[in-house]
Amino acid sequence: MSELKGACIIGQSGGPTSVINASAYGVIRTALDSDCITAVYGAEHGIKGVLADRLFDMSKEDARELELLKYTPSSALGSCRYKIADPDVDDTDYKRILEVFKKHDVRYFFYNGGNDSMDTCNKISKYMQKVGYECRVMGVPKTIDNDLYGTDHCPGYASAAKYIATSCMEVYQDARVYDTGMICIIEIMGRHAGWLTAAAALATEYGAGPDLIYLPERDFDMDKFLADVERVYKEKGNCMVAVSEGIHYADGSFVSEAKTSATDGFGHAQLGGLAARLADVVKQKTGAKVRGIELSLLQRCGAHLASETDIEEAVMAGRAAVENAVAGITDKMVAFERGTVNGRYACKTKLLPLTEVANAEKKVPQEWINAEGNGVTHDFIDYALPLIQGEPKLPKEDSLPRFARLKKVLAK
Amino acid sequence: MSELKGACIIGQSGGPTSVINASAYGVIRTALDSDCITAVYGAEHGIKGVLADRLFDMSKEDARELELLKYTPSSALGSCRYKIADPDVDDTDYKRILEVFKKHDVRYFFYNGGNDSMDTCNKISKYMQKVGYECRVMGVPKTIDNDLYGTDHCPGYASAAKYIATSCMEVYQDARVYDTGMICIIEIMGRHAGWLTAAAALATEYGAGPDLIYLPERDFDMDKFLADVERVYKEKGNCMVAVSEGIHYADGSFVSEAKTSATDGFGHAQLGGLAARLADVVKQKTGAKVRGIELSLLQRCGAHLASETDIEEAVMAGRAAVENAVAGITDKMVAFERGTVNGRYACKTKLLPLTEVANAEKKVPQEWINAEGNGVTHDFIDYALPLIQGEPKLPKEDSLPRFARLKKVLAK
Repeated sequence: MSELKGACIIGQSGGPTSVINASAYGVIRTALDSDCITAVYGAEHGIKGVLADRLFDMSKEDARELELLKYTPSSALGSCRYKIADPDVDDTDYKRILEVFKKHDVRYFFYNGGNDSMDTCNKISKYMQKVGYECRVMGVPKTIDNDLYGTDHCPGYASAAKYIATSCMEVYQDARVYDTGMICIIEIMGRHAGWLTAAAALATEYGAGPDLIYLPERDFDMDKFLADVERVYKEKGNCMVAVSEGIHYADGSFVSEAKTSATDGFGHAQLGGLAARLADVVKQKTGAKVRGIELSLLQRCGAHLASETDIEEAVMAGRAAVENAVAGITDKMVAFERGTVNGRYACKTKLLPLTEVANAEKKVPQEWINAEGNGVTHDFIDYALPLIQGEPKLPKEDSLPRFARLKKVLAK
Repeated sequence: MSELKGACIIGQSGGPTSVINASAYGVIRTALDSDCITAVYGAEHGIKGVLADRLFDMSKEDARELELLKYTPSSALGSCRYKIADPDVDDTDYKRILEVFKKHDVRYFFYNGGNDSMDTCNKISKYMQKVGYECRVMGVPKTIDNDLYGTDHCPGYASAAKYIATSCMEVYQDARVYDTGMICIIEIMGRHAGWLTAAAALATEYGAGPDLIYLPERDFDMDKFLADVERVYKEKGNCMVAVSEGIHYADGSFVSEAKTSATDGFGHAQLGGLAARLADVVKQKTGAKVRGIELSLLQRCGAHLASETDIEEAVMAGRAAVENAVAGITDKMVAFERGTVNGRYACKTKLLPLTEVANAEKKVPQEWINAEGNGVTHDFIDYALPLIQGEPKLPKEDSLPRFARLKKVLAK
């Protein structure tokens, strides 16, 4: 394909992760160093920043601060949850995007996000093709949920998984110090896919993790759950449970949202999350000391426990997006393929059509969940363990994190 | 004083911390290396293990595993919350303790804990004196709450403070990525003293922390709180708040336990903690997106964020207890005195009479809290910052924590 000169835009979308900025760094650094790319813009709050023509000139940033993006959690450029219309129904946004692209001579568009963001990316790609505006569009994957279709795993997942496993190991130490026994219920993110909750099994693999793990890939049965917990508590005097926020009954209703149920005794106003609610039910049933812990936002921004493998792969994904686009490729998402080099885990990038990945969801395979539906098999451990390896050398200032400080100079 | 030959017991008591085992290591290692001390026993679940004559022979442990105690959170020997009787009212326990001490020729007793534990330690010390049984008794301080009397700070506090400050900095990044604004309320431990909650100000000092901080040292006013939050949210479009679990109204009732109030609209069953409840009130008042996060057990067992200074001082406290006891001193608690060496923070041990520290509580000085009662002054930063310094080289196994694995061989 012919060389295409022009500016590029990088946008971040959806929920933050510990390494989404590492991907942004991969895009920005590679783009700044590219001869084809004449300007590198960061969109403020993803596609919303494009629509508002609020683009930061990344060439104005200090190189060292850009480098620090590798260790800065959350979305440094700002994120959005903006659902773009179907262009056949309403093309207002698309016309505006084209206008802004033309104004800044944008010929490369990189969008970093999860399922919904790949849908946005796909629609923009197809629109630009339709109107004949030459712009190479590449999706850069990101999600702690690890539910993107077609890729072995997603940047962001491993660091959250490592945070979850480490925190479970620590809480395990804490939640059994008294001789009086305790039941501890840990609520982990993942509305539809159980990848994050399954990561708690890594803690168990290393001797200090949950006895029971419930994923949204299986229907939740409160009676079975209570029986499981009682059995373990009786046997061991303690019990640690990991539950996905997305666990639901057979009828599809979320356990976290159930208003009243004869089985679980929920007749409460809805304060607190799932962990608090389950803790309440278990307490009523067993009379034991019970504590519910919600890992909340901590698990998706815990960059101090990031996996070096994850950081490196996140940068690689961003770099691959730019390199492939400059080489003439468009309308793809960068994905990961797992392999081995000298018998050890290795990961390389591949490209998937945006149409294929948009809105598709990858769940934990049923065969990786045990027959009882309260744990995962060793297949999961084999899958997840290589991903969390490696300790990054985290930049610190007075023993606290030194995150990137961007100037965010708006392009004229 | 004369040389005293005999066995020693180390017991852990009260809530765990990230470094209580580092103090245990300081005691155990120094005692094992001492010529005077003929056997080193770890009491299972603190004083309860003494009463039950369940003592672990620490000489049976692998030296490397003992060393790993420095990086293992929670109480490795097991803890208890056992309130020992007044010996003048009921001396049953004391007679039993004496019996066990005599059986194993225990001449040194080291008790590692907070306020209540120092009370236990003090009572045992006085009883042994009264009955004329020669046993040197030393308290080793421990508490994330930092509320022990007479010591500059307590082992365990700094690591929890570092966990809190780091987590706040990360959540700060996360809780402001969208252009839609958000209010985030973080609940931090500390029932009576605000030292831990104040640590969130370290995050603010480094550019990414709470806008508002409420300690239990000041009466809480819900109307004032809501006005504070609304003001900041209006000004900045985001607001981050740190609250101590122990905040209470002027009448002394805990905000976390208030059943119904015209002001706060609490008419709910009590699920979830303070953060969830305050989030609910703020949401009703402002209509903003609000998230409550409880740091829960994570903050007291987050050894992966331990302060190296804290670890070293915790070991030093344990070592000092043994060295002083062997040198003939008894009936004291090891405490810390802050000084400077070449203009830099330095810490040395001193000894306080157990009677003085038992049950006394040290709170955040009123003059370190701002006039509005919603933040701390720079005096606090100057106090806390040196304590959190230094990154321990954490032992890992496949990138997960490698905690000490004790054999716990019971003494005959």
